[in-house]
Amino acid sequence: MTRGKFIALEGGEGAGKSTQARMLVSALAERGIHADLTREPGGTPGAEAIRNLLLDPPGEGWGAEAEALLFAAARADHVARRIVPALDRGDWVISDRFVDSSRAYQGGAGQLGDKAVVALHAIGSGGLRPDLTILLEAKEDHVAARLAQRDGDNSDAIGGRDITYHRAVAEAFRRYASEDPKGFAVIDAGGTPEEVHARIMSAISLLPES
Amino acid sequence: MTRGKFIALEGGEGAGKSTQARMLVSALAERGIHADLTREPGGTPGAEAIRNLLLDPPGEGWGAEAEALLFAAARADHVARRIVPALDRGDWVISDRFVDSSRAYQGGAGQLGDKAVVALHAIGSGGLRPDLTILLEAKEDHVAARLAQRDGDNSDAIGGRDITYHRAVAEAFRRYASEDPKGFAVIDAGGTPEEVHARIMSAISLLPES
Ligand SMILES: Nc1ncnc2c1ncn2[C@@H]1O[C@H](COP(=O)(O)OP(=O)(O)OP(=O)(O)O)[C@@H](O)[C@H]1O
Ligand SMILES: Nc1ncnc2c1ncn2[C@@H]1O[C@H](COP(=O)(O)OP(=O)(O)OP(=O)(O)O)[C@@H](O)[C@H]1O
Ligand SMILES: [Mg+2]
Ligand SMILES: [Mg+2]
Repeated sequence: MTRGKFIALEGGEGAGKSTQARMLVSALAERGIHADLTREPGGTPGAEAIRNLLLDPPGEGWGAEAEALLFAAARADHVARRIVPALDRGDWVISDRFVDSSRAYQGGAGQLGDKAVVALHAIGSGGLRPDLTILLEAKEDHVAARLAQRDGDNSDAIGGRDITYHRAVAEAFRRYASEDPKGFAVIDAGGTPEEVHARIMSAISLLPES
Repeated sequence: MTRGKFIALEGGEGAGKSTQARMLVSALAERGIHADLTREPGGTPGAEAIRNLLLDPPGEGWGAEAEALLFAAARADHVARRIVPALDRGDWVISDRFVDSSRAYQGGAGQLGDKAVVALHAIGSGGLRPDLTILLEAKEDHVAARLAQRDGDNSDAIGGRDITYHRAVAEAFRRYASEDPKGFAVIDAGGTPEEVHARIMSAISLLPES
């Protein structure tokens, strides 16, 4: 049985990750490929419980170290209980955020540093990398307009941080992509959802058969 | 201001850690030393929330990796929000279990290995070590008798593991103590609570003044 492909969507708040993840799963289904759509933090009962602690911290809020450890714990459960079993069954997995979000938010823009976040991922999840990470690059003012239109509020404990932090996140994502050009597809997130989707499908068509 | 001393009590289930921690705090108070009595996992609102996830896991139970990361996250919060501030104020801290419980349960007896647990502690809590770790060594049959008398049930997700696991835990504790004789006092946990307490007080009297 052929192992499935593991695709992660990354990028800042409002770049279009969740929209594109859904469109990708539908397009794969039309081609007869079953893809499991999941997200981080979360994706399993254990990881969703940790997600709740992360986004709504008891007490004074998490320090950088505890936060990074909780993300790594949620990811370890997600990888062991959902991602690896799905890939082993031959399904594809499409994850709305994965380890590079931890690297960018806790490592690059946070106080912990990339090496520590990578070390936690090695211990927690055997260092699992997606077959392809799709980095959605959006212009700051486009994102602000999209998020202003979105229902609900965007002020959880992480999304609510300031613009300097979010610029450092974007910069960190670009750095990871430039360090691993084969592992990343950097996609312009501008234009209609259909236009962005077409760019993603052509990046995926370049994945080697397995 | 003199920094307080940090004392951890370690040992297997029912060795008498909680009993001795309380007696130690009272004895220190009689000598005019304020000591903060705390426990792991837990000790802060964040760490207690993680404790609940650990002892009553959602879904299928935690794998070794997620479990070790959750312990390290709880400890990072405990160290940053409670232990270090108390020591900085000049208080002593008495902790009922600390990092060597993670090393013994998740590292030595679990599947993760000591190096990984020590690495998590370095990332999460700067590798903080107690000034003294008191290892309570109890005979297996004594412990069984004590636990049988105790009210309530002892069957949380970790205490309920089998005898081979608990023997490996005891063996791991002995190994850590032999590797760091200055950092540990190995105390015979047999006899009355008062007899054990007297042994602990004489070990503590050997701590260097600071
Ligand atoms: N190409 C697009 N053009 C215009 N609006 C879009 C486009 N893609 C997504 N949107 C809208 O922008 C908002 C953010 O998109 P989406 O939720 O997919 O982003 P996200 O990257 O998942 O955000 P978050 O990081 O907050 O989860 C949504 O309201 C969505 O409908
Ligand atoms: N020296 C002693 N002699 C007899 N019984 C004792 C002694 N010390 C403690 N006990 C009793 O044994 C039981 C276990 O003691 P205690 O709860 O202090 O151990 P513990 O190491 O904290 O256990 P756990 O790991 O389960 O938290 C309790 O019922 C306690 O009252
Ligand atoms: Mg989204
Ligand atoms: Mg106890």
